[in-house]
Amino acid sequence: MDQKIIDQIEAVVGKDGYSVEPAVLYTYGFDASIFHRTPDIVVQPRTTEQVSEIMKIAYANKIPVTPRGAGTGLCGSAVPIKGGIVMAMQRMNHVKKVSVADLWVDVEAGVVYNDLNEELAKYGFFFPPSPGSAEACQIGGMVANNASGMRAVKYGATRDFVMGLTFVKADGEIVRCGTRTIKDSSGYQLARLMCGSEGTLGVITEVTLKLTTKPKKSASCLCCFADVEKAGECISAIIAKPLIPASCELMDSVSINAVNKARGNPLPDCGALCIVECDGETDEVVDRDIAIVAEIAKGLGAIEVIPTKDKDLIAKWTDARKSVMTSLSALKPGCSSVSLADDMGVSVSQVPKAVKAFQEIAERYNVTIATYGHASDGNLHTKMVIDPTDKDEWDRGVKAVDEIFDVCIELGGTVTGEHGVGISKAPNFQKERASELSSIRAIKKAMDPENILNPGKLEQWEGSILGHLRYPCPEYM
Amino acid sequence: MDQKIIDQIEAVVGKDGYSVEPAVLYTYGFDASIFHRTPDIVVQPRTTEQVSEIMKIAYANKIPVTPRGAGTGLCGSAVPIKGGIVMAMQRMNHVKKVSVADLWVDVEAGVVYNDLNEELAKYGFFFPPSPGSAEACQIGGMVANNASGMRAVKYGATRDFVMGLTFVKADGEIVRCGTRTIKDSSGYQLARLMCGSEGTLGVITEVTLKLTTKPKKSASCLCCFADVEKAGECISAIIAKPLIPASCELMDSVSINAVNKARGNPLPDCGALCIVECDGETDEVVDRDIAIVAEIAKGLGAIEVIPTKDKDLIAKWTDARKSVMTSLSALKPGCSSVSLADDMGVSVSQVPKAVKAFQEIAERYNVTIATYGHASDGNLHTKMVIDPTDKDEWDRGVKAVDEIFDVCIELGGTVTGEHGVGISKAPNFQKERASELSSIRAIKKAMDPENILNPGKLEQWEGSILGHLRYPCPEYM
Repeated sequence: MDQKIIDQIEAVVGKDGYSVEPAVLYTYGFDASIFHRTPDIVVQPRTTEQVSEIMKIAYANKIPVTPRGAGTGLCGSAVPIKGGIVMAMQRMNHVKKVSVADLWVDVEAGVVYNDLNEELAKYGFFFPPSPGSAEACQIGGMVANNASGMRAVKYGATRDFVMGLTFVKADGEIVRCGTRTIKDSSGYQLARLMCGSEGTLGVITEVTLKLTTKPKKSASCLCCFADVEKAGECISAIIAKPLIPASCELMDSVSINAVNKARGNPLPDCGALCIVECDGETDEVVDRDIAIVAEIAKGLGAIEVIPTKDKDLIAKWTDARKSVMTSLSALKPGCSSVSLADDMGVSVSQVPKAVKAFQEIAERYNVTIATYGHASDGNLHTKMVIDPTDKDEWDRGVKAVDEIFDVCIELGGTVTGEHGVGISKAPNFQKERASELSSIRAIKKAMDPENILNPGKLEQWEGSILGHLRYPCPEYM
Repeated sequence: MDQKIIDQIEAVVGKDGYSVEPAVLYTYGFDASIFHRTPDIVVQPRTTEQVSEIMKIAYANKIPVTPRGAGTGLCGSAVPIKGGIVMAMQRMNHVKKVSVADLWVDVEAGVVYNDLNEELAKYGFFFPPSPGSAEACQIGGMVANNASGMRAVKYGATRDFVMGLTFVKADGEIVRCGTRTIKDSSGYQLARLMCGSEGTLGVITEVTLKLTTKPKKSASCLCCFADVEKAGECISAIIAKPLIPASCELMDSVSINAVNKARGNPLPDCGALCIVECDGETDEVVDRDIAIVAEIAKGLGAIEVIPTKDKDLIAKWTDARKSVMTSLSALKPGCSSVSLADDMGVSVSQVPKAVKAFQEIAERYNVTIATYGHASDGNLHTKMVIDPTDKDEWDRGVKAVDEIFDVCIELGGTVTGEHGVGISKAPNFQKERASELSSIRAIKKAMDPENILNPGKLEQWEGSILGHLRYPCPEYM
C-alpha cells in the first residue's frame, strides 16, 4: 500500500491503530470459512469518527474496505477478497448504556455476544439469538449477517432486536438510523436493511438492541429415534401442537457417531436424536411443556425419551451437540470438516425430506455429510468431511453442495439461515434470490457508487467458489 | 384521465376492476387523516400480475400511483396528493395458506387484520400487533406503515413478523423477497425495508407472516393516580422490574373526562390511569404478574388499584379506552379531534417528561390536547380538539404540534411510532431523520427512478402541511 495513504491512516488512528506487519496481515486474511486473502492494511478504529475518516481516505483513493468483527463467519464475508483495508472492530467494545426501564441497550459494534449477555443478566434481561460462536462473535458482525442460533424459533434472529444503529457510508457520512423507541413507523427501516448486508452497504459502528426478559425456568428432553425422518416428524408435531420450544437440536447418525467416537460416547447410539429445550416463567409451565414433548416423541415411536432438569446431564448433551464440528474433523485421518453448505433453512415440515435428500446426494458423490442443526426453525447444518488438499474431493464436494442448495431452493427454503452469503453461498444465493437481484443491485449502487465496501461478494460474485482456499490445495489457492 | 389509458387499464382488470365515477373518486380521495385529494382513477386489482400490468401502464405514462389498504391511516399516506391512480387492494383478500407446522401464513395484501386472526385462532396462533383499526385495516397497509398497537411492547410491531413478501416495482417487475423460513441470512432484508415504506418503493401484494402462539390466560389491573407523572413512573417501574406486560394503556385527565362525559362514567375520576394487561400460559403466571403490578402501583401512591379477571369489567375499560378519539370530538360543540401529532414514541422512562411538556405546550397555545396511548412502549397519542373551519385554530394547532414533535426529538424519540409519516409527519420526520435522508433519497431514486410511487410524501414533502384539508376551512383546502 502507498506510504502516503498509510500516513493518512496513521494520522487518524495513531501508530497503534493499524498494522502492515506481514504476520498480522496474513492473520487478518482469514475468517472461519474455507477462504484466505491477505489485505494491504488492518485498521482498528476506536470511534465512529475514526471509521468515518478512514472511509473518506478509502473513498478518495477507491480502496476496498472489508469490515470485520471477530472473524467467526463461515462463508468468507470478512475475507478481503479484493485486498485493501480490513476494518477490524474489536477495539470498539464498550457497552455504552443499558436502559433497563426503556428496554434497550446501546453497544459498540465490537462488543462480544457473551460479554453483553453477562452485563444484561445483572438486570434480568438477555439478548437471545445464541450463535454457536457466542463466546467470540461481535454484535456488529451479528447484525451484518443477521446471525442467530438455537433459540431463534422462539425468540427470533438478530434482526428482530435491532431498534437502531449507526453506520458509516462509503464516502464517510455517518448515519444514525432507527430509534431508541420500541415502536418506529418513521419511514424506511434502514436499520433492518443493514441486517444481512455483510459490510456491503456501510460499516456498522454502534447498535441499539431491544432487551428481552430472561425466562426463569427451563428443562430439556432427549428424544432418540431409529431414523432422521421420525425425528423430523416429531419436531413438526411439536410445533403444530402448537408448542414453541426454546430450542430443538437435531443430530443425524453421522453426527452422533462422530461425537461418540471423539468424546467417549456422551449420546445414546441411535439413528437420529433431538434435544428439545422448553423455558418459561414457572416450573409448572416448563413441566407441562416437556411432558407434551415426551408424549409426542413416544407416540411417534421414539426408542428412548429422557426428560430432565438435571443441569449436568443437559450440559453433557449440549457439549456433545456443540462438538459436532470438531468431532467430524477427527473422523478420518487427514480429513477436515469444511463449511460449504453449512446452514440451509427450510420450512420445518420439510426437514425430513431435506435431510433424506442430503444423504442421497452424499452417497451419490461419495462424500461424508453430517446433518445436524436447529431443526425446529428448519435450519440445518451439513458438514462435509474431505481431504482438503485433494482437488478431486473439492470438485465432488462443490457439486454435491450445489445439489444440496438446489434441494433447499426447490423446497422453498434458503441457502443460508444464519451464517450469511459471503463467498461460499454467493452463486446459490443469486439463484435463490433471482427475483430480488435487480433491487439488491440498485440499492448497492445507490449506497456505494464506487463499490469499495466489501466488493466482489454476494450479488457481485462471479464463477466458481473454488479459489482463494485457505487449504494447501494448489489448484484452488 | 386520457381515455386511451383508461382503456388500457380496463383491458387488464375488466370493467368492474376500476372506476372513474366522480362519487367513487371523491370517496377514494380520503383516508382517516385530515387530508383529501381526488384521484383520476381507482383500480381494484385481483392478482399480483394485474398490479404488475397496471404499473407498466403507469410507468410508461409517468402516472402517479398511490397504493391503498383500508384507508384507516391517520397521516395521509393513502391520499393521492398528486392525483393519478389509487391502487386499492381490498379485492386481494385471501388467506392463501396457513402452514401450522412451519409457523407461517401466506396472505394477500388486502386481508383484514381481524379476519386473519379469526382464521389463525383455529390453530391456536395469532398475529399480535393489534392496531386500533383491527376490524378494518389490511395486512398490506400494516406492512407499509409498520403498524402496531397496544401489544407491541411484548410481541413487537408488524416488521417483526414479516418473513417475506411480494411487491411490484414502479416498472412492473414482480419481486418476491425474504423467505418462508424462520431464519434468513440470505442478503439484504428487502422485506424489512418495505416495512414503513408507505407505498413509495413498491406495491405490496402478498405477505408471509410468522405465526405466534396465543397465550392461554390473561388478567388486567386498573391503576389510578393523582397525576400523569405518577402513572408514568409506575409504568417505568413495571418494565424495570423486569415485567413485560401484554399491554399497558395510559389515559390523562383530559381523556378520562372526555370519555366519562360521553359514555356515562365508565372510568374512575382521577388525574391519570393505566390499564395493565398481563398474559401467559397459566393462571399462576398471570396472577403473579398482576400482583406485582398492583404492588408497584400501590407503592407509588396509586389512589385506586383494581386487579381483575372479570371479562365484563375488562371489556368496559377497553371500550372506554377505545372511545377516546370519538369522545374527544363530542367534548366541545362544533369541534373535532384531529390527527396531527398522533403517535409519537419516546423511551418509556421519558413518558412523564413528555406528557408534562405536551400539557404546557397546549396551555401556551390555548388548545385542548388529550394524551393517551400505549405507554409501556413509550407510544403516546395526542389529539387536538379544534374548530376545523377556523384558520387561526389550525395555525395555532400546527405550531403546538411542531413543538410537541421537537420535544419528542429532543428526548431521543420519534415523531411516529405506529401510524406512519405520510403528509402530516413529513416535515418533522425530515427533522428527526436528518441523518438518514441522503440514504432514504438514494434508495427511493434507485427503486423508483421516475418517482411515480406515492410521490410527494415522506422525504419529498416540502413546506407546511396545511393544505388539501378535508375540512371546510377555505384557506387550507
